[in-house]
Amino acid sequence: MGYSIDKKKFKLFTVHSNPLLTNEIASLLGCAVGKSSVKRFSDGEVQINIEESVRGSKVFVVQSTSQPGNEHVMELLIMIDALKRASAKEINVVIPYFGYARQDRKARAREPIAAKLVANLLETAGADRILTVDLHAPQIQGFFNIPVDPLQGLPLLARYFLNKALKQPVIVAPNHSGLGRARRLAEYLDAPIAFIDKRHPEPGFPQAVNVVGDTEGREAIIVDDLIDTAATVTLAANALQENKVSAIYACCTHPVLTGPAIERLQMAPIKEIVVTNTIELDDDKKVGNLTVLSIAPLLAEAIYRVHREQSVSTLFQ
Amino acid sequence: MGYSIDKKKFKLFTVHSNPLLTNEIASLLGCAVGKSSVKRFSDGEVQINIEESVRGSKVFVVQSTSQPGNEHVMELLIMIDALKRASAKEINVVIPYFGYARQDRKARAREPIAAKLVANLLETAGADRILTVDLHAPQIQGFFNIPVDPLQGLPLLARYFLNKALKQPVIVAPNHSGLGRARRLAEYLDAPIAFIDKRHPEPGFPQAVNVVGDTEGREAIIVDDLIDTAATVTLAANALQENKVSAIYACCTHPVLTGPAIERLQMAPIKEIVVTNTIELDDDKKVGNLTVLSIAPLLAEAIYRVHREQSVSTLFQ
Amino acid sequence: MGYSIDKKKFKLFTVHSNPLLTNEIASLLGCAVGKSSVKRFSDGEVQINIEESVRGSKVFVVQSTSQPGNEHVMELLIMIDALKRASAKEINVVIPYFGYARQDRKARAREPIAAKLVANLLETAGADRILTVDLHAPQIQGFFNIPVDPLQGLPLLARYFLNKALKQPVIVAPNHSGLGRARRLAEYLDAPIAFIDKRHPEPGFPQAVNVVGDTEGREAIIVDDLIDTAATVTLAANALQENKVSAIYACCTHPVLTGPAIERLQMAPIKEIVVTNTIELDDDKKVGNLTVLSIAPLLAEAIYRVHREQSVSTLFQ
Amino acid sequence: MGYSIDKKKFKLFTVHSNPLLTNEIASLLGCAVGKSSVKRFSDGEVQINIEESVRGSKVFVVQSTSQPGNEHVMELLIMIDALKRASAKEINVVIPYFGYARQDRKARAREPIAAKLVANLLETAGADRILTVDLHAPQIQGFFNIPVDPLQGLPLLARYFLNKALKQPVIVAPNHSGLGRARRLAEYLDAPIAFIDKRHPEPGFPQAVNVVGDTEGREAIIVDDLIDTAATVTLAANALQENKVSAIYACCTHPVLTGPAIERLQMAPIKEIVVTNTIELDDDKKVGNLTVLSIAPLLAEAIYRVHREQSVSTLFQ
Amino acid sequence: MGYSIDKKKFKLFTVHSNPLLTNEIASLLGCAVGKSSVKRFSDGEVQINIEESVRGSKVFVVQSTSQPGNEHVMELLIMIDALKRASAKEINVVIPYFGYARQDRKARAREPIAAKLVANLLETAGADRILTVDLHAPQIQGFFNIPVDPLQGLPLLARYFLNKALKQPVIVAPNHSGLGRARRLAEYLDAPIAFIDKRHPEPGFPQAVNVVGDTEGREAIIVDDLIDTAATVTLAANALQENKVSAIYACCTHPVLTGPAIERLQMAPIKEIVVTNTIELDDDKKVGNLTVLSIAPLLAEAIYRVHREQSVSTLFQ
Amino acid sequence: MGYSIDKKKFKLFTVHSNPLLTNEIASLLGCAVGKSSVKRFSDGEVQINIEESVRGSKVFVVQSTSQPGNEHVMELLIMIDALKRASAKEINVVIPYFGYARQDRKARAREPIAAKLVANLLETAGADRILTVDLHAPQIQGFFNIPVDPLQGLPLLARYFLNKALKQPVIVAPNHSGLGRARRLAEYLDAPIAFIDKRHPEPGFPQAVNVVGDTEGREAIIVDDLIDTAATVTLAANALQENKVSAIYACCTHPVLTGPAIERLQMAPIKEIVVTNTIELDDDKKVGNLTVLSIAPLLAEAIYRVHREQSVSTLFQ
Repeated sequence: MGYSIDKKKFKLFTVHSNPLLTNEIASLLGCAVGKSSVKRFSDGEVQINIEESVRGSKVFVVQSTSQPGNEHVMELLIMIDALKRASAKEINVVIPYFGYARQDRKARAREPIAAKLVANLLETAGADRILTVDLHAPQIQGFFNIPVDPLQGLPLLARYFLNKALKQPVIVAPNHSGLGRARRLAEYLDAPIAFIDKRHPEPGFPQAVNVVGDTEGREAIIVDDLIDTAATVTLAANALQENKVSAIYACCTHPVLTGPAIERLQMAPIKEIVVTNTIELDDDKKVGNLTVLSIAPLLAEAIYRVHREQSVSTLFQ
Repeated sequence: MGYSIDKKKFKLFTVHSNPLLTNEIASLLGCAVGKSSVKRFSDGEVQINIEESVRGSKVFVVQSTSQPGNEHVMELLIMIDALKRASAKEINVVIPYFGYARQDRKARAREPIAAKLVANLLETAGADRILTVDLHAPQIQGFFNIPVDPLQGLPLLARYFLNKALKQPVIVAPNHSGLGRARRLAEYLDAPIAFIDKRHPEPGFPQAVNVVGDTEGREAIIVDDLIDTAATVTLAANALQENKVSAIYACCTHPVLTGPAIERLQMAPIKEIVVTNTIELDDDKKVGNLTVLSIAPLLAEAIYRVHREQSVSTLFQ
Repeated sequence: MGYSIDKKKFKLFTVHSNPLLTNEIASLLGCAVGKSSVKRFSDGEVQINIEESVRGSKVFVVQSTSQPGNEHVMELLIMIDALKRASAKEINVVIPYFGYARQDRKARAREPIAAKLVANLLETAGADRILTVDLHAPQIQGFFNIPVDPLQGLPLLARYFLNKALKQPVIVAPNHSGLGRARRLAEYLDAPIAFIDKRHPEPGFPQAVNVVGDTEGREAIIVDDLIDTAATVTLAANALQENKVSAIYACCTHPVLTGPAIERLQMAPIKEIVVTNTIELDDDKKVGNLTVLSIAPLLAEAIYRVHREQSVSTLFQ
Repeated sequence: MGYSIDKKKFKLFTVHSNPLLTNEIASLLGCAVGKSSVKRFSDGEVQINIEESVRGSKVFVVQSTSQPGNEHVMELLIMIDALKRASAKEINVVIPYFGYARQDRKARAREPIAAKLVANLLETAGADRILTVDLHAPQIQGFFNIPVDPLQGLPLLARYFLNKALKQPVIVAPNHSGLGRARRLAEYLDAPIAFIDKRHPEPGFPQAVNVVGDTEGREAIIVDDLIDTAATVTLAANALQENKVSAIYACCTHPVLTGPAIERLQMAPIKEIVVTNTIELDDDKKVGNLTVLSIAPLLAEAIYRVHREQSVSTLFQ
Repeated sequence: MGYSIDKKKFKLFTVHSNPLLTNEIASLLGCAVGKSSVKRFSDGEVQINIEESVRGSKVFVVQSTSQPGNEHVMELLIMIDALKRASAKEINVVIPYFGYARQDRKARAREPIAAKLVANLLETAGADRILTVDLHAPQIQGFFNIPVDPLQGLPLLARYFLNKALKQPVIVAPNHSGLGRARRLAEYLDAPIAFIDKRHPEPGFPQAVNVVGDTEGREAIIVDDLIDTAATVTLAANALQENKVSAIYACCTHPVLTGPAIERLQMAPIKEIVVTNTIELDDDKKVGNLTVLSIAPLLAEAIYRVHREQSVSTLFQ
Repeated sequence: MGYSIDKKKFKLFTVHSNPLLTNEIASLLGCAVGKSSVKRFSDGEVQINIEESVRGSKVFVVQSTSQPGNEHVMELLIMIDALKRASAKEINVVIPYFGYARQDRKARAREPIAAKLVANLLETAGADRILTVDLHAPQIQGFFNIPVDPLQGLPLLARYFLNKALKQPVIVAPNHSGLGRARRLAEYLDAPIAFIDKRHPEPGFPQAVNVVGDTEGREAIIVDDLIDTAATVTLAANALQENKVSAIYACCTHPVLTGPAIERLQMAPIKEIVVTNTIELDDDKKVGNLTVLSIAPLLAEAIYRVHREQSVSTLFQ
């Protein structure tokens, strides 16, 4: 690339969740990943070793709070504490996937708002800025008092599908809250949208699932911010299949993919599932119809601009 | 009502936005509104006079941050400061309509997150708890570190429509982000849902507006959290009319109703617009097809339970 | 001037209160005013657009919290929030006139201390430093935990009167709290001082107003930090006229000038009223005997020195 | 008295500065002073021993930050820390004389604002409320974010002089900043006011001291908030004597009386100096013309009302 | 027991680490454990359900941050957040074993101080008071700004050994930092002390281990705050055996017991290992020579006193 | 020395405790000590004058909080406040001896934790970083949320004794908590360790003091972090003498030396007492057997590295 990093006062660290992604970013930036290790004591407590001076440096730490989320959150907090006490000048926390984001409000009485709690914890530990990709709700930016640079993964997915040149795509939101995201993807592909309407059944009756919008004969692209157990996306795929779509694709930014997700995805009538590497996948999760796009160029560009104090805003849109 | 308030250690104040609503709440609770006045100096600076002791009391202050929003926010902050310095034991801020709520994220580069700012300002001034109705986004609860009791106005609207006993209602979200709200109202009325899909036109082309979902021959109820200029709701109404619905209703919790709103609503093919009094309406806004339901019983019940330290959670749902 | 600003990392913004003053400062500094706009939504909520990158820059925002004070305070807070979230390196808030400054203590029971509240709000929003002119009470500096550079407008007024070469000036404080200010102006002009003593009358009796000090046959200069409704200054002028002064001048830093002020000033026996442009005056307020001195050179010099990290202290005296 | 204290949850402690005053307050309230001791280690570090449980109690700690001010401030902070960690429910800090109050603004470049610093330190340590008497500047209330109950000692002095039934009193402010205080005292005694005008001499010339206002033949009462080295008050007394007053009294709330104060007061043409016991005086300072009024009834009343959560406001005026 | 709890405003919750201990405490106090559940989403994120109102209640939450420490810390933080947002009046956090306590200083460059971080996180989440047993270093109390009630488990261990009536006990500290603890236990048993001196060997040489102090023919009791991998205690036991002690006992408050601990303890020449149940042990860890004493009576007494606002201090010694 | 300081943006100030040490540091760094004065008002209040601009500078302030500790703490806090308000860019506080460090935990009920309080006060005043030498307990680092660079004085003492080439040294901890320090010194000198065991006697019996470990015929070096009244070290020396050591040395980093310390040290059987100048000693304390090593080179090196943002970690070990 044409990146020219001031290596003396720039440090890029990984904690534990995304070593491959961090290496890819470092490679793009033409720098090394900072020497550190994150070990465990026998009782599981995290032991951080930062093995080079960070005094006066602008530090970037890459860590998704993906599964195991609590471990990753605590590792990250301890890493930030170590950097702060080691006199880092600025601690930029790069969180490709911000977990706990679905607990962003009190949906029932006496619920925590875990996403806000995690935001507070990061500030308490000493974070100066957050860079993250496709928050579950954009309002989570406001959980922070420090600057948040909210990068967008959707254009990456959109470009991939544009290259496919589908004939009659329709973008499908698999639930009520994802309609805005579907609309944004639809703008890229000049497509109509639809959504899956689920009604809470009365006791003793099965859940009613309807496709609202015209999808027949079209190539459906289900879009969400994340796929976790894949229940939502496979329910949507099955409903679409009954509505006689011509093909079904699914895409999301964050491949959480826990529990029965892989099995479900393999059995669902989905031609291809497109995700990014904000969460690092084990090899056994890289099944045949799964395509992984790299978020590294986006993050590298954002890190570079933050480091050089250049405008990042073109990466928000 | 059966409310038994400990008047010695309970104080209910109004600031400036909702004197009638506050009187109604006081009447329900069987208490008086605390003596205070909010005046202006010649240069417009707010002058608060609290005319009875609040030392050691649990105080409830009712103020919507409705138009003029900046005046109402500053009045409220100054009132809270006065109460804090006067040794109130607990300052509960009742905000029937929480303004600035639409600025809840950075939609573009270098935007403020004004809703978070206002939340921070309220905490800085000295608020101990927030009671509010139908936040624009439920995530705004997480902008606060103090407890928020998020009351729900939707059941009030639902009960009103249930009493109407419409034959074939369909609930319509007038934009992409309101689908969840439409789904919740639909549950009450056992109705299907639809939404209005707007596509940003290319330069030189008119905006494309489609109704997605089956609405023909049905009685459509457009639901939103607020109606401001009424552009969104009238656009939806017109689109629905073209889709041959049998009747059109609209409802929202917060009647912001600024600029051309009243004129638009009067001219739109809407049979009835149902709102609540979280925002106090001037008489010239109380047009023929506007029905105002009172939120006072809900707020009185919530205030009473908070005062008596009883569970408020049944009011969240 | 000889100012050499590093334009890349320096940004000067205006919000809404003092565009002309800001332009004058920019002109003196040889820089442009940053591109931004402050608009209103239909319901009056403030909408800020910052149209150039501020990432890593030292930003100076000019805004007096003059009438309409609440609007100006909220605009300023929202601007600061936007700048903070846009990763400005340092947010210097230039407040030529700091409103709400007269509410700087509890004069009666259960009063707010609005000036402290506003100070806290500015820090909460993200201000890093305050530059201001002639605070109503110098103790207000201590309301802030961030550095305050308290610039002095009095020397500007003093130089103007020195140039007049009055023969036998006497400096008059129009109330009890302004005696120190009168003494400081008197030092510049080598003049004696006097003050206006007002006694609270008993019910049914008119207020007693006395001139304390020798003023007969002298040219009186009434000095205050601000003139609001002009009640105080015209009362003083009338009392001085009865004491047979040879001429009456009035001066202040901040021309608040609300309500009947202009009418009173035109009718009062005051030869000339000298003010500065810390508050921008509408044309209809620029009456015949009003002279406006520009504070821009002082602010430009202070901004330059803060930007270049040079000593500002010579501007305090 | 008629005080009825809930002794179980009320604790009154003294630290080191005012044991006699605290005993007097306790006697008035009908309670005991809490058992504690403040000792020193050999190297001067303060050692606090609180010898009874304070868990869940409303605690009042009496300590003036009078000379030695730093010792008294640190003792008080350590006492507050001990009470906080011992789970006191509420820590009310009674500071009859708030020292460092004269450093309440940056009078010159790079000065501290020590009064604000001390306010911050008290809050950091854990104070919940401040009760204090006659702050040097009322704006110091705003240095705190916690409630301050600003008690007034002036009425005590006024009542003493009212009882004297002077024939033609004139109230004299000994410097420019004390004119408001003189005016308030004058209201009680229905008297005119005057002030001492001091001009900074040019190098080589003596300081010019003028009495401004009519004082000839009258009984002058010089009033200030405190008398420290007595330079100001003796300068005023001498100037008044030259102006042929018939008698000179002086009064203040806080008898700081350091350095040459006692000697000066004994030699000055002052008939009587009236002070209160906000600062405890050594016997050698209790010279013949010094009258000490007790502030204990005022403090006892205020403490009682705060404890009982009754209005304190009548004590502010 | 004689405990009389006000059940309406008292709530005792367990999170996940010590359900049996919490039940035992509840049984002693004659109250029920609050209804709640701590579940996991499929991706491991913690899901808290508090199933009864806590509004206005004094809540006690019992959770050791024992293995898996990060899970337990995050569970506890989320629980505190939920309680705070549910308007609990006071959140008392009972942490029988405070993990991460060994990372209480920077032992090497760029280390975190994880114990301080965890303290900050607890305060950020909303904890009001900490009750804990035998902190690794007593200075950790000072990591908190909220009150800490530092309960002592050593007397429990001491009473157990007193009942054994050993003939010639010697108390042995297994490392340099444990000498104070050994001395305190020795006071109870009227015994001398010794310690194990380990020297860091030069490369290629075995570690030198010496027993310093007279132990021959005596019954040695090795005492530590915790036993983790049991490396330290078995090294000490072997060294003591070579020094011809007549019997070897070991005791500690916190049985961390990870990795090879159980195997080592079974093979070591230790007659009996005495611990408490601050950490709940799986059955496979309850080996033959392990005696578990219950800390529940101590915690129940402390919780009761805190709830009743009685002095807890007798439990510190 | 080869130091190259950027004098424009670097300022070194002394307050009051260590002017000679600060001069020595300045001399090593080739810079001047910043112009300032710390005076007293007549009533003892501290008056700071900073007589050169610090705007934008990295400032280092040297002040031990040694006797008189309260004066030195308050002076330091006021100095920091002045620097903060004068827009210093970074305030590095160099505290060679951190007093109040022995109050680092609640040893008894209702004790303060004064060391934590002082840490909080320093942060509240505006300190950005702490450099200090040999904290009484290393956990005190964790009392701060800002970076602490914990410099080690022990190597200085060790090198001094290495140069003495003692034949059979034994390192002696004079109490239970100093064993770790003794072990570290022993590593430098390749020596065994011992400690002084003191048992609290029953009433009526003298304190029992035993030397634990082999010391006979050896040259004993008693090591502690500080010597205050010298009671501990002379008790240790006497016990060692009874155990027939061949010579007794004592050393510590901080010569507090209050009360009877000098007399005791002169009378004790100690050949030489080695200390550093973290605390400046009056000439009458520089008795014959006292050797003072200078800590200035260590501090100069640390200050230089912090200023140049180079790694300081080699100075921690």
